[in-house]
Amino acid sequence: MIITSTEDTITAIATPPGSGAISVIRVSGAQAFDIADKIFFGQIKISEAASHTIHYGRIINSTGELIDDVLISIFKTPHSYTGEDSIEISAHGNPLILKKIVELLVQSGSRLAEPGEFTKRAFLNNRIDLSQAEAVIDLISARTDTALRGARNQLNGILSKKIGFLKNNLLNAISLVEIGLDFAEEDIEFIENKELLKKIKNVSGEIDNLLASYSFGKVIKDGVNVVIIGKPNVGKSSLLNYLLKESRVIVSSIPGTTRDIIREEISIDGILFRMFDTAGIRNTQNEIEKEGVMRSREAIKNSDIVILMNDTVQEYSFDIFSEVCSFIDKKKIIPVVNKIDLIDNQNYLNGDLGISAKTGEGINHLLEHLKEMAIKNSNYTEKSAIVSNVRHYQCLENTKNSLENAKESILNKYSGEFVAVDLRNAITNLSEIIGEVTTEDILSNIFQKFCIGK
Amino acid sequence: MIITSTEDTITAIATPPGSGAISVIRVSGAQAFDIADKIFFGQIKISEAASHTIHYGRIINSTGELIDDVLISIFKTPHSYTGEDSIEISAHGNPLILKKIVELLVQSGSRLAEPGEFTKRAFLNNRIDLSQAEAVIDLISARTDTALRGARNQLNGILSKKIGFLKNNLLNAISLVEIGLDFAEEDIEFIENKELLKKIKNVSGEIDNLLASYSFGKVIKDGVNVVIIGKPNVGKSSLLNYLLKESRVIVSSIPGTTRDIIREEISIDGILFRMFDTAGIRNTQNEIEKEGVMRSREAIKNSDIVILMNDTVQEYSFDIFSEVCSFIDKKKIIPVVNKIDLIDNQNYLNGDLGISAKTGEGINHLLEHLKEMAIKNSNYTEKSAIVSNVRHYQCLENTKNSLENAKESILNKYSGEFVAVDLRNAITNLSEIIGEVTTEDILSNIFQKFCIGK
Repeated sequence: MIITSTEDTITAIATPPGSGAISVIRVSGAQAFDIADKIFFGQIKISEAASHTIHYGRIINSTGELIDDVLISIFKTPHSYTGEDSIEISAHGNPLILKKIVELLVQSGSRLAEPGEFTKRAFLNNRIDLSQAEAVIDLISARTDTALRGARNQLNGILSKKIGFLKNNLLNAISLVEIGLDFAEEDIEFIENKELLKKIKNVSGEIDNLLASYSFGKVIKDGVNVVIIGKPNVGKSSLLNYLLKESRVIVSSIPGTTRDIIREEISIDGILFRMFDTAGIRNTQNEIEKEGVMRSREAIKNSDIVILMNDTVQEYSFDIFSEVCSFIDKKKIIPVVNKIDLIDNQNYLNGDLGISAKTGEGINHLLEHLKEMAIKNSNYTEKSAIVSNVRHYQCLENTKNSLENAKESILNKYSGEFVAVDLRNAITNLSEIIGEVTTEDILSNIFQKFCIGK
Repeated sequence: MIITSTEDTITAIATPPGSGAISVIRVSGAQAFDIADKIFFGQIKISEAASHTIHYGRIINSTGELIDDVLISIFKTPHSYTGEDSIEISAHGNPLILKKIVELLVQSGSRLAEPGEFTKRAFLNNRIDLSQAEAVIDLISARTDTALRGARNQLNGILSKKIGFLKNNLLNAISLVEIGLDFAEEDIEFIENKELLKKIKNVSGEIDNLLASYSFGKVIKDGVNVVIIGKPNVGKSSLLNYLLKESRVIVSSIPGTTRDIIREEISIDGILFRMFDTAGIRNTQNEIEKEGVMRSREAIKNSDIVILMNDTVQEYSFDIFSEVCSFIDKKKIIPVVNKIDLIDNQNYLNGDLGISAKTGEGINHLLEHLKEMAIKNSNYTEKSAIVSNVRHYQCLENTKNSLENAKESILNKYSGEFVAVDLRNAITNLSEIIGEVTTEDILSNIFQKFCIGK
């Protein structure tokens, strides 16, 4: 774990890597303006400029060499993304220029930012809560409209509000317990406990709903991995090509062409399907292809759905089917028979899904099947609080366990103190989701998944 | 040719494609602020905000859906890159979000910008001259420090100033001719002509220098294409790997592995070498490899340098040497013998360059050789006006021809009017470089090479 201090001034390229018209470098921290003034020469000093203003000038290094002419945007604390003094340098979009400017910024007193460190500072400076910070990276990496809306809802605080609501209910419950403690000698205990149990069950029920939303939330956020397997030449690449409506994979009549696993992504009604075309599973003497077969097995193990492909031309490969079933759940497999355009008799299918990657016949049926297997029977609306993050899922499970302990304590008529401890644990578990309770370990685990510059 | 009107308001993503912390969309034109006000909801209307200020707010579409929360930077005419009213929208760096915002901007009255259209407008609005506009794209695509400095010098106007200086000299020369015309009946003609010839020769000499700088300028700007050819297993990929100091190409002992041409770039003392590792040139029955061999021939034809590789193990391939010589200049070939670590007797080399891609022996020698062949005997300083653009080269050749015509007219004692016409042609040719004289064809040819958003 790298301990990062918010006293440092940090810098990073904030725009995507590569060439473009412009790229932007971010600098944030107490020294941001002073550092800028060491390397930037314009009509006005950055440290003397107003917040939310833009200034044209030249970046010049210590030997007097002009690195680039740039625009600098100024954001004064607390009115910046991080809450700190920040600048954004908009330079010509050449990676070489960007590298030189970043080097200069580091020489001048800033350091390279860790992944997600700008957002981490936004969290530490109370600009956003932790589940909102996590939504930032989801928002950036969302690949479908549905994923985008999910992340946007979380960033807007739909989940945070729900957690806050549940937390308040539990705080209420604790005050009931405390009333019980005060009147412990009197006879109101039983009524209070009934009321208390009801409150806890209500919260517990809402947490069950959130936990149940996770499998949907995960599909929304991360998409679904689909592996296409089958003997050489059954048409795996052709199916992928048909789906992509363009020919990025070399399709050839020579067996063993698809040596590497090709990954392409398609979106069906807002769900992202990551398609892996694999080298045919078979024993091979060829050195390079052996490597490919190994990788296929890995891909199958990590997949959510396996399309097992045969065709109407070659012998049906029962051996591949049984081999794959030996290490994954059979329910994940969609058996498909390709090249149905070559035969008239549909009896050949034996219940498998018939398709033609050439004519497109049956492919819509296959897509419907993929979608059904991905989202099962979910009926969440867009405004529901949905859990899409494994960390949140785990916190909610811990909350639920604490609530179960509380219920048991009540039913076993343990002293109110025990119940209060269980409820406080539940609140702590909920608070971890929005980061009111956290550790540097949790934080670094979250932010290391971010891109640099965010 | 697409006719573009500067009356439209144009929009494009200005940052590199892909995901990142932030991405920026540019909008430029008379309607930029009004369009922004249709989709942006912040504390202040964009059309009422001051130039060079930044505003936080939300982009919301016509159905009320929140697309993103963004920062908008405002640049009022003429104090913008294009010289027009412009805004820059800084959004979360997700391609999907960017696409939605651009679509919204188009629906709201702007249109997608052509490649380079922002810079074209900067030129049309006299913010920069044409050779400076061309330097912008060179600056963005520069891959080495040397290329960067070359483009920066051109953007700073070193070439423009040189052209302006030569133009002034020619304007001076024309005034001498005109004096000659006024006093045509008197006897000062001969002296004036001598003076005039001297002036023209001076300019002509400077243009020769600029023309001579082109081969150097081109290497600086575009780099050098190097193709490595030779029989299978002589170690072409191994050499490339050694040069790259990392293993991006699969090196395998099976002949015919390198089916595709792999392109990698290395920088030797600021010169960019684009290295092409080719499929072995040989007759093959394999369908996929045939395609590879075809592509090798293309690569060789388009190369600046060919490394023809043999090794100390296999028979020397005189046939490849003679085949390659049949379609390229022999002077472009560097014959190399690999695997010298396997033999003691250097006589094997017969004048070829001995290397070992395994131990690194001889490789520095090869790099020196590559560099010498690339830049020949150039001794340009960084502050020289250097021609790196084929369009400028052609304009200079035309100028030179016009000056030759002028000289001939003088020597043949043609009337001063003829000389003046030649000199004016020369000035026109020079003016084309900086765009004082231009056509829509020339412009669209230049700007279509730009990236979108610049």
